[in-house]
Order: sequence, then C-alpha cells, then structure tokens
Amino acid sequence: MRKENSLQHIILNGGNLFMPSVSVDCVIFGFHDNELKVLLLKMKNSASWALPGGFIYKTEDIEDAATRVLKERTGLSDIFLKQFHVFGQPGRAEKKFHINFLKKEGISLDKNNWIIQRFITVGFYALVDFAVVTPQPDFSSVTCEWHDLDSVGDMFMDHKQILLKALETLRLQLNHEPIGYQLLPEKFTMPELQKLYETILGKKLDRRNFQRRILSFGILKKLKETRKGGAHKAPFLYCFDLKKYRKALEEGLQGGW
Amino acid sequence: MRKENSLQHIILNGGNLFMPSVSVDCVIFGFHDNELKVLLLKMKNSASWALPGGFIYKTEDIEDAATRVLKERTGLSDIFLKQFHVFGQPGRAEKKFHINFLKKEGISLDKNNWIIQRFITVGFYALVDFAVVTPQPDFSSVTCEWHDLDSVGDMFMDHKQILLKALETLRLQLNHEPIGYQLLPEKFTMPELQKLYETILGKKLDRRNFQRRILSFGILKKLKETRKGGAHKAPFLYCFDLKKYRKALEEGLQGGW
Repeated sequence: MRKENSLQHIILNGGNLFMPSVSVDCVIFGFHDNELKVLLLKMKNSASWALPGGFIYKTEDIEDAATRVLKERTGLSDIFLKQFHVFGQPGRAEKKFHINFLKKEGISLDKNNWIIQRFITVGFYALVDFAVVTPQPDFSSVTCEWHDLDSVGDMFMDHKQILLKALETLRLQLNHEPIGYQLLPEKFTMPELQKLYETILGKKLDRRNFQRRILSFGILKKLKETRKGGAHKAPFLYCFDLKKYRKALEEGLQGGW
Repeated sequence: MRKENSLQHIILNGGNLFMPSVSVDCVIFGFHDNELKVLLLKMKNSASWALPGGFIYKTEDIEDAATRVLKERTGLSDIFLKQFHVFGQPGRAEKKFHINFLKKEGISLDKNNWIIQRFITVGFYALVDFAVVTPQPDFSSVTCEWHDLDSVGDMFMDHKQILLKALETLRLQLNHEPIGYQLLPEKFTMPELQKLYETILGKKLDRRNFQRRILSFGILKKLKETRKGGAHKAPFLYCFDLKKYRKALEEGLQGGW
C-alpha cells in the first residue's frame, strides 16, 4: 500500500486533506443469478463490518467522492450512484471506538484530531452486477466481501441503519424508476425480469399483474425470438428500449400524473 | 434583536457554536386558494433573494436544525420537513460575496473565519398552508416574503438550483406519497383535490383519470354530504382516511409492487 494511502498518513494528515465533519458511505447492492447481496468491509482489529466509505477532498465534489470510493472498492466506474439520505445525529460516531481502534494500530491521537470530531455522512447507493466486481479492502479494513442481505448482523456505528434505509429506498425506487439495465442480459424473458423485482422486494409477485404493469411503462421491446430449451412453452424475449428507459430514469416511469 | 442572534455575534462566534462546513436550507412551499408560493428572504445590503437556512449547533441533530429554521421563519412547528438532496459542489459558496456583504455590515473577517470555508448544504422542503404562516426575517435579511414560483429570478449562490430541485422532488412525490392533509379543509370535493395536484404540477389533469387513480390509493372516504350552493350538480364531499393516509406516507401509495 502506498504511504499516502496508509491509515497513519490519513489519520495524521486528514485535517489538511479533507473537508471537516463530512463523509460519504456507499451501500453497494450486488445482483446476479437471482441473488441480492451487499458489499461490506471487515475492519482491522475489530469484529465490526462497515460500509465502504470515505472522506471528501477539500476541492472535491461530494458526488465525485462517492464515485471514487465506489471505484476504489469495486473497480467499477460509470455506475450510477444515487444520494439517498444524510445521517446527521450528533451521537452517531463512537469516539472511544475510534480512539481504541487506532491505538491498536499504533496511532495515538491529539484530542483535536479531525477524525474524532462529529461527522455527518451522506449515504449513496448503487445496484451493480456483482459478477463483474473485484472487491478491494481499504486502509481501515482487512477484507471486502459480498454478504447476503439476510445474514448481515450488527455493524459499525450506524451503518446497519444506513444499509436498511438504502434498501427501503431501492424498493421504493421500483415504484417510480426503471431498473434492470446492466443487471440482466441484453435479452431476457418476462419471468427473468419478474425475478429481479422479486429478489429486490423480497417477496413473490403475481405473474399477470407484474406483466400488465411493467408493459404499461413502455420501456420494453418485445422481440420475435423466444427462449428455447426449457420444459415449458418457449417464452418470448424482451429487451429494454434504451431511449425510453433513460427518459423514464430522468422523468419517472409512466404512471405519473 | 437579541445580541446572540445578531449577525456580528454569529459570524464572530459561529466557529465555536456550529458544526463546520455544513448548513441546511429549507424550501418552504406555500399553498392556499389554488396558489403555490415559496418563502424567500431578501438579504441585507444586497439585491439577492435567498432560501431560509441556517447552521447546525455542535450537538444538534441535522433534522432538528431544519425544523428550528422552519419554526424561526414561519412560526410553525409540527410540519413535516423532508430531506431531499445534498448540494456539495466545491465552488458553490461565493467567498468574495460573503466578505463584501459582511464588510458593508461593518464586520471584517479573519481569513480563517468559519463562514468563508467550504460548505455543503442539506436541502429540506415542506409544503404548508401559507395563510397560517407569519414570515420572519433572520439576522442576515431585511424581509421574508412569499413569492410566486413563476416570478423567482436569480438567487443567492446556488439557491435557485436548490429551489428547482425541491420542486422537481415535490412533483415526483405526488407519484408515490399522499398529499393534501393540512392544505385542504377537512372536507373537500374531488375538483378541489384535483386543483391541488394541478397547482403543484403546473398542468391540467383529466378529470376521470384523476378520480380513478386517486380513489385507487384507498386514502379517501366519500361522505354522504354534498357541497351545496354551486351552479352545477352539488359534488360529493370527501375526507382523508387518516389511518390509511399515514400508512401511505410511510410505505408509499398503493400501486407499489
């Protein structure tokens, strides 16, 4: 690890490098083969799991900081990260935890050190195909791994609350934004698209209602091809109408007022 | 004005009172008699209009800071303020503007003064009945007034961008959250409710589609009474089913997946 990315360097010089009191945390959801996962870091010298996050350089846009964290942890760029909530309770940072954590790493802090001041954090989330990600730990962690959403226990600070709020936001997003591009193959069947929605929502949906509603948004093109090889009648293939998909991303799905 | 609320006191002591680098700005939309307005401050010594905003005390929750600003500017409490976006571009504050503005007020700044550092701001919005509001200017402003949305020109810093983003968010909110409680009388007609939606959206809606969709959410109770006195057939009165209305506020309107 390069010196300027070492824990010691960042803790001792962060006050000059970064904006005070503001961080970003990223909830990176991964979808692949009908599984939904979340990317977490195992912290050094601790049993805690944390969300990938970071600080904002003094002249860096806050959105760019989140994009940088995503890139550093996953290797991915060109991923749409969505700001979803600011977590700003005064007691959210555990000062003692930081001091002890850093002591174990051989770093002792001045009482005015920037890292033990109050921080608010801006939460971002992204949904990516986890098969294309190469997880990378950061300066404060030993591993970076995908976790099943259901099996995530207690987390560092308020990170569990941030994760749950992101999941709630992602689920609400299904009501007003299209989803699926870069998560499904270019051509997919209606049951495959339904399965994506069901996996995110964590519940079964009625087949006919799903089809009627998703078609009403006008973001799908039905192809003449069918998916052959199954035991049932070969289902038709669909692809996204990318022009309409992108319009719906900006303006909301049809079904607005 | 009490000394501790004076501009000079706040500028010179703010570094000890407030979190560094973070502010809140509130977009307070007002609805009354089919008009939609926004509450703005006319700044001292300047032609600029600004959103009501403020800083966060060192031990204050960020949501509480926004609620405090709303209360100070409008006299209202118990109003639902919704966090909608963080504005975090590094160049958003105009350092020179601040320095000149304060110079005219007889306050000269140390170059490290907290007010001329980089700030991110957390945007909140609320929709209130403007007839019940008593607008109050703050320490940096001479007046606090309702403005027609259409007539708002250039604003202080990035406040116009914040206002437009809030309006966009409010309009999208109509797709997935109920609206109208505390803005309409307890009993209202379907055309009155439709007019509220039309005013926020800035466009006409089809009467039958509106009625069909709004009833499908299950948040309205049709009363046996009618509104008498008009030239037309007396329309039925409705009221909100508050239990279902509050549930829809938390979980999103029916019509989710």
